[in-house]
Amino acid sequence: YISKLPDVGTTIFTVMGALAKKHHAINLAQGFPDFKMDKNLIDLVTSAMQNGHNQYAPMQGDLGLREAIAKKFDLLYATSYHPENEITITTGATQAIFSIISAFIKPNAEVIIFRPAYDCYEPAIALNGGKTVSVALESPNFKVDWNEVKSKINSRTKMMVINTPQNPIGTVFSEADMRQLQQITKGTDIIILSDEVYEHMVFDGEKHQSACLFPDLKSRSFIVASFGKTFHNTGWKMGYCCAPQPLMSELRKVHQFNVFSVNHPMQKALAAYLQNENRYLELSAFYQQKRDLFLSLIKDSRFKFTPSKGTYFQLLDYSGITQENDVDFAKRLTVDNKLTSIPISVFYDTKIESKMLRFCFAKKDETLKQAAEILNQI
Amino acid sequence: YISKLPDVGTTIFTVMGALAKKHHAINLAQGFPDFKMDKNLIDLVTSAMQNGHNQYAPMQGDLGLREAIAKKFDLLYATSYHPENEITITTGATQAIFSIISAFIKPNAEVIIFRPAYDCYEPAIALNGGKTVSVALESPNFKVDWNEVKSKINSRTKMMVINTPQNPIGTVFSEADMRQLQQITKGTDIIILSDEVYEHMVFDGEKHQSACLFPDLKSRSFIVASFGKTFHNTGWKMGYCCAPQPLMSELRKVHQFNVFSVNHPMQKALAAYLQNENRYLELSAFYQQKRDLFLSLIKDSRFKFTPSKGTYFQLLDYSGITQENDVDFAKRLTVDNKLTSIPISVFYDTKIESKMLRFCFAKKDETLKQAAEILNQI
Ligand SMILES: CSCCC(=O)C(=O)O
Ligand SMILES: CSCCC(=O)C(=O)O
Repeated sequence: YISKLPDVGTTIFTVMGALAKKHHAINLAQGFPDFKMDKNLIDLVTSAMQNGHNQYAPMQGDLGLREAIAKKFDLLYATSYHPENEITITTGATQAIFSIISAFIKPNAEVIIFRPAYDCYEPAIALNGGKTVSVALESPNFKVDWNEVKSKINSRTKMMVINTPQNPIGTVFSEADMRQLQQITKGTDIIILSDEVYEHMVFDGEKHQSACLFPDLKSRSFIVASFGKTFHNTGWKMGYCCAPQPLMSELRKVHQFNVFSVNHPMQKALAAYLQNENRYLELSAFYQQKRDLFLSLIKDSRFKFTPSKGTYFQLLDYSGITQENDVDFAKRLTVDNKLTSIPISVFYDTKIESKMLRFCFAKKDETLKQAAEILNQI
Repeated sequence: YISKLPDVGTTIFTVMGALAKKHHAINLAQGFPDFKMDKNLIDLVTSAMQNGHNQYAPMQGDLGLREAIAKKFDLLYATSYHPENEITITTGATQAIFSIISAFIKPNAEVIIFRPAYDCYEPAIALNGGKTVSVALESPNFKVDWNEVKSKINSRTKMMVINTPQNPIGTVFSEADMRQLQQITKGTDIIILSDEVYEHMVFDGEKHQSACLFPDLKSRSFIVASFGKTFHNTGWKMGYCCAPQPLMSELRKVHQFNVFSVNHPMQKALAAYLQNENRYLELSAFYQQKRDLFLSLIKDSRFKFTPSKGTYFQLLDYSGITQENDVDFAKRLTVDNKLTSIPISVFYDTKIESKMLRFCFAKKDETLKQAAEILNQI
């Protein structure tokens, strides 16, 4: 069979996860917590199942859940999305992203993404015959040169993917970044796919700059969000996206034939859980404590770092330790030292000079201490 | 925005479901039970959540569940699929179908489907730039003319979608059908997408003819299956697909970037549930009783019918009652008579003469009695 994705292998998350398992390594690779989620939310799923919510949910999602999401946007971003036709529940953020790209990208359409980029964007673009146009961000500060971005826009540019807070690098876009983005896309019909799954994890007093805060940008944007990242249950595969109605109606055409609808009892549970509007407020402080703990424990190690500003990932620079490439070093750390991370070169399309590994700090303090002990010995 | 799917509206299932709700009609439209699922399976999900299986499942699915599926194929079809690289858990059968089509269909590739066809195949083909080539099956017997099928195969034919037992018509392919299919595709590399979600609902002593029973066919086939249809929990969105490794590895490239992985606690629960190997054996008898009840209750009505041979759907012919088209009649039945069904003309791409509505009999006996009372008055 002639592959439609000849260059695609197994994702790095599966590869490193399997290696961690094989070598009984501490797994700070894929982004998921090793601590418990809220038992109340589990109980709400049990109730929903017992109450008989086990058949198809509405295609666009449970209305109560969409209403709770609308309330969140009002509360946190002082902006409104209409539950009826501007919010759709998805099987995690990934299915939203895949469906949005499938709904709009035709052969030869160009999509601008920032590298290093989370690895699901490009295969979805390629599968639809589109072309990924990359803007590389470079260490140590990973700042965007908006003039470079502007120079890559042309009549074939159909979409731009942004991701703030950004996985894997832990940077956040500033308000100035967002204004520049708004400026250079104003008057175009370039769709902004704004992957905001780490919206509730921003540190050191930074503010999450959602695309929905900028009215002109909002009118062309999909906001993609995740319950799994927010409520410590990545395995439930629950997320959603929001967009103005003309965009959303195209997304739903794809969504309804991709998955039709999303897990019903879990939607009911989340709708009930979100009746308490304070659900989001503690998360940044919670994860900042973890980041600070982790970094304080390794401050005397041979790794260098700039503290992560958002996400639950921390990059560590190992250039003072070895000149090995990051894939080899990440594997060696797993096999020899029993600690697994994610090499970041795999998220670029060009060779990079920097020597960086990504560590997930969404872990028990105990796990972070064990990991730090290993890092301090290297 | 120029739509990639200009001809696609909201699926008929959403349209008729909303209409049923609005008019408080008995809903025999979309295919889901109105009775309770097994409480034991619910309890297993609760346990899985409480035991901490709330983070990402492996991309290809929980290994225990894949092993249970392999056992099923051994038990029911005396054939083997390797859990490691020939079975993938999906977010319902729909996501499997969408991902399979996305993995293989390129612009101008042709896909043969049989009409009336469940409505998710064609948009997925169109989205990937492919062309749907239809073979129309006609009432009353809906038999396939395999010479016609053969005449539609050419060098651009990349895939054929079969669906036995067939939704919406309730027919099943015979062993002779499958042999003809095997014969006309032998030596080609046409991929068979075999949608077998109603595999456990076959009546009157018929035998489900899975594509995996025919070795040459199996070597080119994806088998798509559903837990939701089988265990009365369509809202959980759990399914899977099986194929030889070279096909499966291409599917997984798409699957991993479409949804990455599937609901973890529900996979754990299903894996435990399937330790009892008798789970599938009662289903045909259970649904045959429902079909028989429903048909016995309306045998003196003005509707004509051929008993369904499989699925949980029954077509009723209303040509003796009105010459209205089926969409109008289905709506009128909902608004005036408070009974909702699915018109089948929407599953054809050409105008059809037959006057048929599809009724779902996966309902409590009480519901079927109420529906029959209405039908008897028309
Ligand atoms: C499929 S991995 C999802 C994203 C994430 O958790 C990661 O970047 O590690
Ligand atoms: C999204 S509807 C799924 C299939 C079905 O249940 C039907 O045909 O009614």
